[in-house]
Amino acid sequence: MPKVGIVMGSDSDLKVMSKAAATLEKFGIDYEMTIISAHRMPDVFFDWAKAAEGKGIKVIIAGAGMAAHLPGMCAALFPMPVIGIPMSGKNLEGMDALYSIVQMPPGIPVATVAIDGGMNAAILAAKMLAMSDPELLEKLKAYSAEMKDTVQAKADRLAEVGYEEYLNNK
Amino acid sequence: MPKVGIVMGSDSDLKVMSKAAATLEKFGIDYEMTIISAHRMPDVFFDWAKAAEGKGIKVIIAGAGMAAHLPGMCAALFPMPVIGIPMSGKNLEGMDALYSIVQMPPGIPVATVAIDGGMNAAILAAKMLAMSDPELLEKLKAYSAEMKDTVQAKADRLAEVGYEEYLNNK
Amino acid sequence: MPKVGIVMGSDSDLKVMSKAAATLEKFGIDYEMTIISAHRMPDVFFDWAKAAEGKGIKVIIAGAGMAAHLPGMCAALFPMPVIGIPMSGKNLEGMDALYSIVQMPPGIPVATVAIDGGMNAAILAAKMLAMSDPELLEKLKAYSAEMKDTVQAKADRLAEVGYEEYLNNK
Amino acid sequence: MPKVGIVMGSDSDLKVMSKAAATLEKFGIDYEMTIISAHRMPDVFFDWAKAAEGKGIKVIIAGAGMAAHLPGMCAALFPMPVIGIPMSGKNLEGMDALYSIVQMPPGIPVATVAIDGGMNAAILAAKMLAMSDPELLEKLKAYSAEMKDTVQAKADRLAEVGYEEYLNNK
Amino acid sequence: MPKVGIVMGSDSDLKVMSKAAATLEKFGIDYEMTIISAHRMPDVFFDWAKAAEGKGIKVIIAGAGMAAHLPGMCAALFPMPVIGIPMSGKNLEGMDALYSIVQMPPGIPVATVAIDGGMNAAILAAKMLAMSDPELLEKLKAYSAEMKDTVQAKADRLAEVGYEEYLNNK
Amino acid sequence: MPKVGIVMGSDSDLKVMSKAAATLEKFGIDYEMTIISAHRMPDVFFDWAKAAEGKGIKVIIAGAGMAAHLPGMCAALFPMPVIGIPMSGKNLEGMDALYSIVQMPPGIPVATVAIDGGMNAAILAAKMLAMSDPELLEKLKAYSAEMKDTVQAKADRLAEVGYEEYLNNK
Amino acid sequence: MPKVGIVMGSDSDLKVMSKAAATLEKFGIDYEMTIISAHRMPDVFFDWAKAAEGKGIKVIIAGAGMAAHLPGMCAALFPMPVIGIPMSGKNLEGMDALYSIVQMPPGIPVATVAIDGGMNAAILAAKMLAMSDPELLEKLKAYSAEMKDTVQAKADRLAEVGYEEYLNNK
Amino acid sequence: MPKVGIVMGSDSDLKVMSKAAATLEKFGIDYEMTIISAHRMPDVFFDWAKAAEGKGIKVIIAGAGMAAHLPGMCAALFPMPVIGIPMSGKNLEGMDALYSIVQMPPGIPVATVAIDGGMNAAILAAKMLAMSDPELLEKLKAYSAEMKDTVQAKADRLAEVGYEEYLNNK
Repeated sequence: MPKVGIVMGSDSDLKVMSKAAATLEKFGIDYEMTIISAHRMPDVFFDWAKAAEGKGIKVIIAGAGMAAHLPGMCAALFPMPVIGIPMSGKNLEGMDALYSIVQMPPGIPVATVAIDGGMNAAILAAKMLAMSDPELLEKLKAYSAEMKDTVQAKADRLAEVGYEEYLNNK
Repeated sequence: MPKVGIVMGSDSDLKVMSKAAATLEKFGIDYEMTIISAHRMPDVFFDWAKAAEGKGIKVIIAGAGMAAHLPGMCAALFPMPVIGIPMSGKNLEGMDALYSIVQMPPGIPVATVAIDGGMNAAILAAKMLAMSDPELLEKLKAYSAEMKDTVQAKADRLAEVGYEEYLNNK
Repeated sequence: MPKVGIVMGSDSDLKVMSKAAATLEKFGIDYEMTIISAHRMPDVFFDWAKAAEGKGIKVIIAGAGMAAHLPGMCAALFPMPVIGIPMSGKNLEGMDALYSIVQMPPGIPVATVAIDGGMNAAILAAKMLAMSDPELLEKLKAYSAEMKDTVQAKADRLAEVGYEEYLNNK
Repeated sequence: MPKVGIVMGSDSDLKVMSKAAATLEKFGIDYEMTIISAHRMPDVFFDWAKAAEGKGIKVIIAGAGMAAHLPGMCAALFPMPVIGIPMSGKNLEGMDALYSIVQMPPGIPVATVAIDGGMNAAILAAKMLAMSDPELLEKLKAYSAEMKDTVQAKADRLAEVGYEEYLNNK
Repeated sequence: MPKVGIVMGSDSDLKVMSKAAATLEKFGIDYEMTIISAHRMPDVFFDWAKAAEGKGIKVIIAGAGMAAHLPGMCAALFPMPVIGIPMSGKNLEGMDALYSIVQMPPGIPVATVAIDGGMNAAILAAKMLAMSDPELLEKLKAYSAEMKDTVQAKADRLAEVGYEEYLNNK
Repeated sequence: MPKVGIVMGSDSDLKVMSKAAATLEKFGIDYEMTIISAHRMPDVFFDWAKAAEGKGIKVIIAGAGMAAHLPGMCAALFPMPVIGIPMSGKNLEGMDALYSIVQMPPGIPVATVAIDGGMNAAILAAKMLAMSDPELLEKLKAYSAEMKDTVQAKADRLAEVGYEEYLNNK
Repeated sequence: MPKVGIVMGSDSDLKVMSKAAATLEKFGIDYEMTIISAHRMPDVFFDWAKAAEGKGIKVIIAGAGMAAHLPGMCAALFPMPVIGIPMSGKNLEGMDALYSIVQMPPGIPVATVAIDGGMNAAILAAKMLAMSDPELLEKLKAYSAEMKDTVQAKADRLAEVGYEEYLNNK
Repeated sequence: MPKVGIVMGSDSDLKVMSKAAATLEKFGIDYEMTIISAHRMPDVFFDWAKAAEGKGIKVIIAGAGMAAHLPGMCAALFPMPVIGIPMSGKNLEGMDALYSIVQMPPGIPVATVAIDGGMNAAILAAKMLAMSDPELLEKLKAYSAEMKDTVQAKADRLAEVGYEEYLNNK
C-alpha cells in the first residue's frame, strides 16, 4: 500500500520527479507515481486527489512548472500534507512556479521545497513519515551521517591533493 | 441571463472586482458575481465552473491574489475565455499573482490583465462580446471617444491654467 | 475573409508566432499574418490596425519582445480584443516584454498570455470566436478531450514501463 | 509534552509567529515557543535544536527574516520536519527570507510556507501530525468545512446585499 | 518657439513632469507641455509627435507609467532625441515602466532616466541643447558648481554641529 | 576632430561597443574609442573625461557591466550628454548594470539605452548631434525609411512564401 | 587620528549612517564622518579618498542609494577595505543600490552589508580593526555576549508572560 | 600559520574558491582551505569555526550557493571578519545566495562580494590584512598599478589595430 503519492503535471517534469521516487526507494518507502494535469484533466485530477487518502497515502509530492496549480489544488482536496516542487522552465528560472506554489492563502498550506528539488521533496516526505516511524527515523539519521561522510571524504581529498589536482580530476 | 461570470477567491478582492461589475453595468452587460475559493471549496468551485456555460455565460472574469489558481482552474473547466486579474497583496506587489495567472501551460490560456486591473477585465469582456454584437461594439467605440475627450479636457485645462495651478487644485 | 489578424514586430518572433498560425489552422480559422514594426513603420502600423475591422478581423494576436508596444498600440486602435504574446529575448527572460504588454492602463486592456505562448494565444482567440460559434466550441471541447487523452496515455505508459525506462526512451 | 517547537529569530517576528501558536491551540496541539537567534546565540540554538527530539517534539516551526538561516540550521540539526516561515521586513518584501529558506541544498529540506504565513505553518504542522492521528485528521477536515462555510456565508451576503452595500459595511 | 516638448500620458504624472518644466525654466529654455495618451488618443498623439519638429522642438521629454508606450512611440515618430521618464505606480515600483521604456529595439532608442526622474530629464535635455549653445553650457557648468556648493554646505554643517544635532534639526 | 567619445570599462565590452562605432561610421560621424576602467585607472579616467570637451567631443557613449560606474562618473565630469549602455554579464542578465546606470541621482543624468544596446547608443548620439545639424538629420530620416523598407521586405516575403518556407530558409 | 572614514553621498543617508557612527563610538573607535557626492563634487571626492590613507584611516564606510557609485569609487582610490551600505530609496527597495555596490568587477572589491545596514557596517569595520587589536577583539566578544543576553532576556520574558501579553506590552 | 581560512559548502564551489586561493598565493598570504557543509555536518562546522581564531586565522572567506548559510553562520561563531561569496547555481543566477549572504541582521555582518567573486574575496582579505601590514599594502598598491597597466595595454592595442582587428584576434 503506497504511503506517498507522487504526481506531476507533465512528463517534462519526470527527470526531477524520478529523483523523488529513487530517494523514496532508497528509504524503502512505498509510493505510487503518476502524471495528471490539473488543467488538462481536472476531473481525473479531482478523483485522484480525493481517492488518495483511501489508498493509504499519507503525503503527496506534487511537481509542476510555470503557473503551477497542481500542488495547491492537491492541498485543497487532500487532508494531509502536500509537498510542492517548483519546476524551472524555459523562462523565469522557476520563479513563476515558486510563487505559484509557495504563496498559498491562509488555510491551505503547501510544503514547498527548492526549485527542481526532487530529492529534497522525498526526504521531506520521509521525515514526515518518520514522525511516527522510529525505524525510518533511524534510517534518516544514518542518511545524515552518510551525507556528512561524503562531504568529509571530499574535504580529505582536497587536503591531500590540493585544489589544482582536485579540479583537474574531478 | 448573465453573459459574464465574475468570480473572486476572497472578499478582500471585492474592491477591485466591483470595478469590473460597475464597468459591465455601464455597458449594459448582464453578469453574475460571486465569491468562490478554489482552495477552500473545490467542489462548489467545480460545480460553478461547469455550470457556467449552461447559464449562458460566455466569458468568466476571475480575480485572485498570491498563488492565484482560480483563473487557471476556471480555464480548465470552462470552454470559453477566462480573464484573469492578478491581485496585489501585502507582499510582492502582485508579482506572485501575475505569474500564477499569466504563465499558463500550452492548451489552457488565461487572458491576463494588469495587476488590480478590475476595469480593464470588464472592458476586455465587453470587447469579446462585441465580436458578435454590433451594438455593443458601437458603445465601446463611444467609450473610447469619451476617454479621449476626458484626457483632452485635462490637456486643455493644463494649457489654460499652467502646471502650478493644476497641481494645486487637482 | 480572415477572422484573426496575427502581427509581429520582427521576423525573429516568427517561430513563436507560427505556432499561433498552425493552431488556428488546426481549428479551421481563417487568419492573415504579417510583420509590422510599430516603431519602425508607425504609419503602416496605424493603417493596418485601423483597417483590420473592415477586413472582418474580430481579434488580433500581437507578439513582440523587449519594450513590446505592438500589442498595446493595437489595442489603442482596434475596437475588439487584442491578445498579446510577450517574447523572451537575449536578456531578462521575457520579463521586459511581459510587463510592457500586461500592465496596460485603465481603458485599453491587452489579453496577455504566457511568455512565448504562441499556441495559447491562438486557443484564446478560438475561445473568443467560439462565444458565438457553437461549431467551433465543439471543436474546442474535442481538443480539450484530446489533450486529456494525450496526458492519460503518458500516465499509462509511465505506469507500464516505470520511470527509468520512460526517461531512457523518451 | 510539546509536539511542536515554535522558534523565531527575533521578537519582531512574534506577531506572525503567534498566529501559528494560536492555530495550534485551536487544534489542541501542545507546543513550546521561544526566541533563539541562530546568529546571536549559536550555542544555545544548537543545544535547543538537538534537544528538541528528546522533548518529544515531532516538528519545528521556524520563522526568520532577511538572511533567514534559522529554519535551515534547524533542519541541519533536527531529524524530523522543519517548517520555515519567511518574514517580510523593511526592504525586499520577504524575497530575501523566502530565498534563504526555500532554496535549501539537496539532503536538508525545509518545508516552506508563504511569506508571513504564520497560520499556514501551524496547519501544515497539524497535517503532519494528523498522518498518524485520526482524531486530529477529523479536526482538520472539520476545519476545512468551516473555512468553506465562512466563504459561502460571504458569497451569500454578497448575493443578498450587492457589492456596494457589501463594500460599505465590510 | 519651444525647444523642448514635454508630454505625459496622464495628469497623474504631472507632479513628476512639473519638475522637468521647472528645471527647464531655471535654465531659460522654452518648452511646451501637454497631456496626450498614446493609448486613448492615438491620432492626436500621432499628429502631435509629427508636428513637433515643425514647431522647432529639438527634444521631447515623455513620461509614462505601467506599460509605458508613450516615450517609445514618440521615438518612432520624432527624428531627434526622446527622453523617457518611467513613472512608479501603485505596484511594481516603476519596474514595469522602466522596462517598457529602456528596452527599445535596435534603431529606435529612448534616452531613459531614473524612475520618477523629472528633474534629470530636463537637465539631460539642457545638456543636449548645450551641445550647440555655449551660453547654455556655461549655465550648466554653473549649475554643477552650485550643486557642489549645496553638498559642501551640508558637509560643513555636519562637521560643525555633529550628526545628532543635524538629524534633530534637519 | 571627434564629436563622440566611446569609452568602455573592459575589452569584454568591445563586441557591443563596436556596434556603436560601426553605426557612427555609417552616419559619417567622427569618434574616438578607448578602453578606460574607472575603477582600475581612476586618474586616467578623470583626465580623459575632463579633456573630452576640449577635444571637441559633444557626447560620450559609455558602456559597462556589473556595478557599472563608468557612465555615471563620466556624467559627473563631462558637461554635455553621456549615453550609458548596460552590459549583460555572466549573472543577473544585465539588471545589475541597468540599475547602476539608469538610477542616477538628481542633477547628473545618464541617457540610458537597452541592455547591450550598442547600436541604439550610436543612433541616440546621432540624434543629439542632428539637433543642430540638418544634414545629419536628413541622414537619420533616410535611415528610418531604410529600416521601414527592410521590415516591409520581410513582410512581403512572408506573404509570398508563407511561414513554413520562411522559417526553413531564414 | 581617525581610523575609520564614514562618507555618504547625501544627507538623506544620514539617519542610517549615524547608526554606523554611534556604533563606532560604542567601541571607542575614532572616526571622521562627512558628506561627499562622487557625482556632484568628483574632485573633492578624489582628494578626500586619496588623502584618507595619509590621515591614518584604515577602513572607509561608504553609503549611497540608487546608482550608488560612492563605495566603488572609494575602492578604486583607497588601498585598504571599503565597506558599502546600499540605501533603500523611494523605489526598488534598495535593489538598485545593492547591485551597484556588491557587483564590483574583479580587482576592486567592496565589502557590502545589508540594505540600510548602518550598524553592521560599523561592526564589520570594528572586526577588521580587531584583526590587529586584541583589546578591541575583546570588546567585540563582549558585545556578542551582550547581544546574546538581550535575546535571552526576550526569550525569558516570552516564556514568563506568554505571547499575548508580550505583544500587548511590547 | 594560516591567516585566512577558506571554506566552501560543496566541491561544486571549488572552481570559484580556487581563484581566491590562487590570489592569496599571489600575495604570499598563508591560508587553509576546506570543504565543510554547515547543513550536512553542523558539528564539524561549529568546531572548525570556533577553532579558527586559535589557529591564527584573522579572516574567513566562505562561499556557498542557494540558501547560503555558511558565511552567516561563520560570522556567528568567528569574532573577526567573514567574507561571503554568493555562488550562482542552476536557477536564479545567484540571487538566492546573494540575498542569503548579504541581508544579515544587525550585529552579525558578512562582508559580501559579487556573485562568483572568488578573486575579489581574496583581494578584500588581503586589504584587511594590509591594514596592519605595510609590506602587504605595498604589494596591493603594486597590484593596482599592474591592473592599470593591463587595461592601458589593451587600450593601446585597440588604438593601434582598430576594433575589427582587435575583435578578430582577441
